[in-house]
Amino acid sequence: MATVTTKTGQVIDRQVMDSMLRRRLFYTPSFEIYGGVSGLFDYGPPGCAVLNNMIDLWRKHFVLEEDMLEVDCTMLTPEEILKTSGHVEKFADWMCKDPKTGEIFRADHLIEDVLEARLKGDKEARGQKVEIDEEKEAKKKKKAKDAKAIKLDDAVVKEYEEVLAQIDNYDGPELEAIIAKFDIRNPTTDGNLLPPVAFNLMFQTSIGPSSNMPGYLRPETAQGQFLNFQKLLDFNNQAMPFASASIGKSFRNEISPRSGLLRVREFLMAEIEHYVDPEGGKKHDRFEEVKDVELSFLSRDVQLSGRTETTKMTLGKAVESGLVDNETLGYFLARIQLFLLKLGVDQNKLRFRQHMLNEMAHYAADCWDAELQTSYGWIECVGCADRSAYDLTVHKNKTGAPLVVRQARAEPLKVEEWQIDLEKKKFGPRFKKDSKTVEAAVNALSQEFREKLALDLEKNGKIEVNVEGVESGKVELEKDLIKIEKRTRTENVREYTPNVIEPSFGIGRMLYCLIEHIYWSRPDDEARGVLSFPPVLAPTKVLVVPLSAHQSFRPIVQRIMMRLRRLGISNRVDDSSASIGKRYARNDELGTPFGITVDFQSVKDNTFTLRDRDSTKQVRASEDEIVKAIESMVQGEETWDDIRKRLPEFTGQEVE
Amino acid sequence: MATVTTKTGQVIDRQVMDSMLRRRLFYTPSFEIYGGVSGLFDYGPPGCAVLNNMIDLWRKHFVLEEDMLEVDCTMLTPEEILKTSGHVEKFADWMCKDPKTGEIFRADHLIEDVLEARLKGDKEARGQKVEIDEEKEAKKKKKAKDAKAIKLDDAVVKEYEEVLAQIDNYDGPELEAIIAKFDIRNPTTDGNLLPPVAFNLMFQTSIGPSSNMPGYLRPETAQGQFLNFQKLLDFNNQAMPFASASIGKSFRNEISPRSGLLRVREFLMAEIEHYVDPEGGKKHDRFEEVKDVELSFLSRDVQLSGRTETTKMTLGKAVESGLVDNETLGYFLARIQLFLLKLGVDQNKLRFRQHMLNEMAHYAADCWDAELQTSYGWIECVGCADRSAYDLTVHKNKTGAPLVVRQARAEPLKVEEWQIDLEKKKFGPRFKKDSKTVEAAVNALSQEFREKLALDLEKNGKIEVNVEGVESGKVELEKDLIKIEKRTRTENVREYTPNVIEPSFGIGRMLYCLIEHIYWSRPDDEARGVLSFPPVLAPTKVLVVPLSAHQSFRPIVQRIMMRLRRLGISNRVDDSSASIGKRYARNDELGTPFGITVDFQSVKDNTFTLRDRDSTKQVRASEDEIVKAIESMVQGEETWDDIRKRLPEFTGQEVE
Repeated sequence: MATVTTKTGQVIDRQVMDSMLRRRLFYTPSFEIYGGVSGLFDYGPPGCAVLNNMIDLWRKHFVLEEDMLEVDCTMLTPEEILKTSGHVEKFADWMCKDPKTGEIFRADHLIEDVLEARLKGDKEARGQKVEIDEEKEAKKKKKAKDAKAIKLDDAVVKEYEEVLAQIDNYDGPELEAIIAKFDIRNPTTDGNLLPPVAFNLMFQTSIGPSSNMPGYLRPETAQGQFLNFQKLLDFNNQAMPFASASIGKSFRNEISPRSGLLRVREFLMAEIEHYVDPEGGKKHDRFEEVKDVELSFLSRDVQLSGRTETTKMTLGKAVESGLVDNETLGYFLARIQLFLLKLGVDQNKLRFRQHMLNEMAHYAADCWDAELQTSYGWIECVGCADRSAYDLTVHKNKTGAPLVVRQARAEPLKVEEWQIDLEKKKFGPRFKKDSKTVEAAVNALSQEFREKLALDLEKNGKIEVNVEGVESGKVELEKDLIKIEKRTRTENVREYTPNVIEPSFGIGRMLYCLIEHIYWSRPDDEARGVLSFPPVLAPTKVLVVPLSAHQSFRPIVQRIMMRLRRLGISNRVDDSSASIGKRYARNDELGTPFGITVDFQSVKDNTFTLRDRDSTKQVRASEDEIVKAIESMVQGEETWDDIRKRLPEFTGQEVE
Repeated sequence: MATVTTKTGQVIDRQVMDSMLRRRLFYTPSFEIYGGVSGLFDYGPPGCAVLNNMIDLWRKHFVLEEDMLEVDCTMLTPEEILKTSGHVEKFADWMCKDPKTGEIFRADHLIEDVLEARLKGDKEARGQKVEIDEEKEAKKKKKAKDAKAIKLDDAVVKEYEEVLAQIDNYDGPELEAIIAKFDIRNPTTDGNLLPPVAFNLMFQTSIGPSSNMPGYLRPETAQGQFLNFQKLLDFNNQAMPFASASIGKSFRNEISPRSGLLRVREFLMAEIEHYVDPEGGKKHDRFEEVKDVELSFLSRDVQLSGRTETTKMTLGKAVESGLVDNETLGYFLARIQLFLLKLGVDQNKLRFRQHMLNEMAHYAADCWDAELQTSYGWIECVGCADRSAYDLTVHKNKTGAPLVVRQARAEPLKVEEWQIDLEKKKFGPRFKKDSKTVEAAVNALSQEFREKLALDLEKNGKIEVNVEGVESGKVELEKDLIKIEKRTRTENVREYTPNVIEPSFGIGRMLYCLIEHIYWSRPDDEARGVLSFPPVLAPTKVLVVPLSAHQSFRPIVQRIMMRLRRLGISNRVDDSSASIGKRYARNDELGTPFGITVDFQSVKDNTFTLRDRDSTKQVRASEDEIVKAIESMVQGEETWDDIRKRLPEFTGQEVE
């Protein structure tokens, strides 16, 4: 794993950063006074504020900008729906149990841990420098015997590395084979493990008092959107393409959550389902606007060859060359990158990785992840999948609801087909209660089969048709009951199931990775951390600092606070007795971008100093000018550099 | 039930209104294509937009205005926490099962339904006019035999009415007695029911792969806030009073949900936990600001006497007279009313009802509900409870975490008490592995008991102490091991558990009740519904309507749309071929407050008409003036009346 550094070139000390984030209550383990539950975290005031700002920005960037139809669907979901969607069967991870200790391991994580430890041991044995992942080290100290410095054969090293590069690509039997082949055991006790079994990751519950309706907490917001497709299409006056969107919590009952905020059991998602006509190459009206945007791509092919280097390319070229399948998928990849950059993500730590075939969710036709580089490695923060017509089709087939688009044809279409006429009057007396079932089964016969049956009917005067649900499993139909003829039908309306392009955002993950990108510490004092949130995202925009507890400052502080509040600019007053420098340092850790100092000069002439968090430079101007400058920076109209050029610098106090 | 009318004096036809709300996709039953699940609803685009606006307003009105500490805690909650809070034992409704049909009834609802039906039958028998509750009627038509017109004794009528007025006041045995006394049975089959049993309303699940950690979906957001109390107090630099706040989903596994959006199994809440020193009468710094606000109160005493009339009173008087227990509770009641009025609630349909003693949640010391009048009756939308020190105390006792405030005393306090000194060096050899347990047990002895032990020790040279967890259950301690003496201790720090005042908002309920308050239909055409959302809450602020599909309108429409979007003003274009009147009528149903018409005059001189939804009046002015007017109305700075006075009226077209 490459060493990750801050923008200022410092190696990130995750332990220091993490303890700062917890001390400042960005987040905290849930139920900590009860011992906590792994994979569950609460957001404190600054974390919550950044999340809210992020959601707000997301809504503006995607929902408002493209008139998406936002919906809010329930998390509780009856089992039947998730059976249809495939989640009951397939939304699972593989876990291995130690029959002696009862410990449970997620199979792919176990393989990763063991092979990485062996590779590390090999490096040590070869006398090479070993980079240390602190979290894993800490874990090992607690429970596992450290890997021994044992040299491996070069061929084995290569094999391990190939397995690790494709670790997301394996299914259960493959994981089992790898565990057997490399003799992977419980790292703590060295005991043998049972073969991997699938563990469904959905939280199960029961809806209603009679416990006869099993249900789950949704694993994604998507299903609720699909189920409302017909209503949303109506709401959109039948116009295509369009998108629905949803922001809300989803749930995954992780086997063994780790990596802090990155793998949690309850998480906030923002998902878009963009419905597009599968014919005509999935063009996008606004692709032109993004075709010159350049992305770093890591393709499936490169990964399969065990490598990880990215290629920079414009989206225009990526779609043209077929690397990205179509314009609509490409359009959203670009919009995702633009959004991430707005948040303050470091473009050098952003790549788009294509899913490998076995790795893709059961519904996906193609999928790219926006990954952000952190001290934990590259982390998937946004998925952008082409779910094809999978979901709408399975729900339509299950319920009979018309989850389709009906579009008048410019030219009527002539279709030659085998049509069936039934003598329905005779069906009732003949089939009694089964007549509806028989009718439905006959009407569902395929064109190919109809052709064959037409010949049979002509030859024998009767045919036999399989009908599920009647006693014998089949019925006989004579010539007086059924007619099968080839005819031409004119189709004035085209009916199709749209394909779905789904950009899906993990808000909590984005927040954590972003924090790693914008975190640094003052070069002169490593203990003084700074979070360089862009103003639009910062939990608090302005810190108001009176020079001292002097009476005369109070009304001024109050006035500035109220004025900013009326403008919707969140602010806090720190009138504690700490030095101005200390007070600013505290708020650097909270990511507060601007500071207003109220001093004796302010009392005299109503001028104030305005401090910039990142440079610690200050300007001095009248109240009106200061407030205007802040407003303009918070709204993204001006940057600090613009302000610094406009307003006179102030160097009177040291307020780093 | 009194007939409820719209602001324009029309009787609300709930069926018509409801079908409009569904047609316009404000909300829709979840999973409808799968047959739906009662008590679960999805919000469509306009519903979702109003919800988001409501949350935004709530955050500004409460969180920002009072610097509350917003947190976002997980919904998944381990069982242990909800055992401590009392929810596992007490968060339940009473249900009766029909042993023959398997049907399950919520006991209090069943009693209500049956007694109301009998009272209706009595009225009919007496030849009096009967008001009809459509929903109940519809239900009955589907499944129940209608009540017969049977006259009841006057005394029985009175008894029924008293039971109904106190229906929320009964516990399980009382409900059982009422069912027996009035011979209440299954209304459909007339079959006898089993006695009521408690049904816990929490959704249960299991956290992690080994299913050894039972958990629930939270029934309220409050517990997560309490568990973080210590961290929040630290974040607030130990300053008291302060409040935490949280917006998020909570869950109740209702026995038989009814009344649409009013009783659902998954719902959005916004809760405030305001922590206050229990000493000094729970004063509030800003009470002065609200003391003249007048509320309609329905006290506990009035309800107990079987009546429902309200009393209007200022909060100053209500607190002074003891009707409302303290200033802090009163302050929040006023703030709640101010918020509801901002939303557009009709003040004449708002009352504050005090909980009766048996009705209060198990943790509450006093509680007032803000109730809104609707066609379903008076509906609780906001609860404002004094939870006393209940929650912090039980969690502190369970976990040992210091959920307390420590405050330097102005004057040190002298405390005379019995102190214990232990000869710890001798504890280890004597008690071995139990020595810590013995030590803890001795230190936990009460003052009273210490006094007695001190005498014993002096008399006998040894004492006996019960110690849970050691083999014999008790230990003997001789003089050389323990000393017990009366001494004076100086307490410089006061330690106390804060009390909690909790305003708790049901966002979905508020939305539905509000809609009933602002819904009306054009007097000249009852089919044309209007939703008079205040601009700040409206899902879409502006409808842009080109007169026709003429080419020359397109760039102008596009320009106006982009300009409004940049200002953050949500807008939609309707360039369909429907008449202008029809297009506006559609958007009246969506509650869009303003309409801009683009006509041929606009192409010539860049002037536009601006239409007001409620009055259907129009003004005409330049693009700049129109945009400025909209901005000012959306921000609540001006009203339509202000604009109408400023800008010239336009009467050229009929655009009702």
